[in-house]
Amino acid sequence: MVDAAGKTFSDEMARCIDECTRTHQVCLTASGHALRHGGAENTAHVIRVLSDCVEICQTAANFMLRGSPNHRQVCSVSARICREVAEECSVFDDEVMRQVVEVTTACAETCEAMAA
Amino acid sequence: MVDAAGKTFSDEMARCIDECTRTHQVCLTASGHALRHGGAENTAHVIRVLSDCVEICQTAANFMLRGSPNHRQVCSVSARICREVAEECSVFDDEVMRQVVEVTTACAETCEAMAA
Amino acid sequence: MVDAAGKTFSDEMARCIDECTRTHQVCLTASGHALRHGGAENTAHVIRVLSDCVEICQTAANFMLRGSPNHRQVCSVSARICREVAEECSVFDDEVMRQVVEVTTACAETCEAMAA
Amino acid sequence: MVDAAGKTFSDEMARCIDECTRTHQVCLTASGHALRHGGAENTAHVIRVLSDCVEICQTAANFMLRGSPNHRQVCSVSARICREVAEECSVFDDEVMRQVVEVTTACAETCEAMAA
Repeated sequence: MVDAAGKTFSDEMARCIDECTRTHQVCLTASGHALRHGGAENTAHVIRVLSDCVEICQTAANFMLRGSPNHRQVCSVSARICREVAEECSVFDDEVMRQVVEVTTACAETCEAMAA
Repeated sequence: MVDAAGKTFSDEMARCIDECTRTHQVCLTASGHALRHGGAENTAHVIRVLSDCVEICQTAANFMLRGSPNHRQVCSVSARICREVAEECSVFDDEVMRQVVEVTTACAETCEAMAA
Repeated sequence: MVDAAGKTFSDEMARCIDECTRTHQVCLTASGHALRHGGAENTAHVIRVLSDCVEICQTAANFMLRGSPNHRQVCSVSARICREVAEECSVFDDEVMRQVVEVTTACAETCEAMAA
Repeated sequence: MVDAAGKTFSDEMARCIDECTRTHQVCLTASGHALRHGGAENTAHVIRVLSDCVEICQTAANFMLRGSPNHRQVCSVSARICREVAEECSVFDDEVMRQVVEVTTACAETCEAMAA
């Protein structure tokens, strides 16, 4: 695969695009789950954090796919938001939320590597 | 995987989400390629069509991930735009554009199935 | 203002871009409001419909800003989703939701005109 | 107007949302213009930078509309990308590009204030 600046994606960037895409999908699915099963006040907070993660991971993936050097700044933000989601969702004893913690933790690692 | 309305995605929908995601990524990458290698006037047209495809496939995938019944209407539009891209890009004798034709054709088929 | 195909936007299209942008903003704001104040089951449904509207209005505005003839198909979908939101939200006796009904109704009208 | 966390937007945030929205629209329109009128190599670069700006300004506006405290991090990135666009586009002697420089400069200022 060739990126939008004409160079082959590095393995590291290809993995980061994959993790951001997976996190985008899992967090979007999980926000519907949280909405149906959470308690009112906390739910509003968790869904807001998940929505931040859905949008910034999509944005980070798009910057990398466009071959933009500015992906570093965006990946720095997505890493921090992924860490926030992993922390917020680790308190839930629930299969969907365990998957959220797993994918956001993996995504944070790859985004941190791209941001460096 | 569980969708945002709490039901397991059907195999057909899971495949459509995958195809929309792949088409989003390939068309975004290809638009950078077209920009660097195309001739002026035609390039503007091809990039506009590719940009439409990038955005509508992302939107279609998001509607499915949210578990929205409105995905049918969006998939109907993404199917038509994928067909347009496949036709426009089939005239190029070039590896990147051949991949675009392949993924948009496969994506159009799954979107047509979801729109029905 | 000049659109992405080099022609001046018609007054009608400029108005539709404005209405889609306003609806995007009001529905995104309202979904946070619904999350904090609504009853569990209904809230999940209203927020899903509002999220559909947020995303399709942004997409419709972007198609028009890009000067894409495919805006007609997208505006047809955004018109229908705006009508759905206006109907769903008309049952709430609440200032935020009354604003949602007002902006989605106005947006549906301009989108229907662009889709024709 | 009430934001997604239930507080009235400050005047400063309302202005930043407006500037991000305006920059999103002007840069999306301008990228079509650059595509039709620019010289090949430079055009690819300018369009890539404009595309970064289109996407990050939309993302920044959405974070503020959702009432997310993470808007600070996103506004920091959008400020830097707006400055990059203003610098890149200041070399063009052209009405569309002069408007780009004007709106991205104003947007950078409001984003910097929100990021602080």
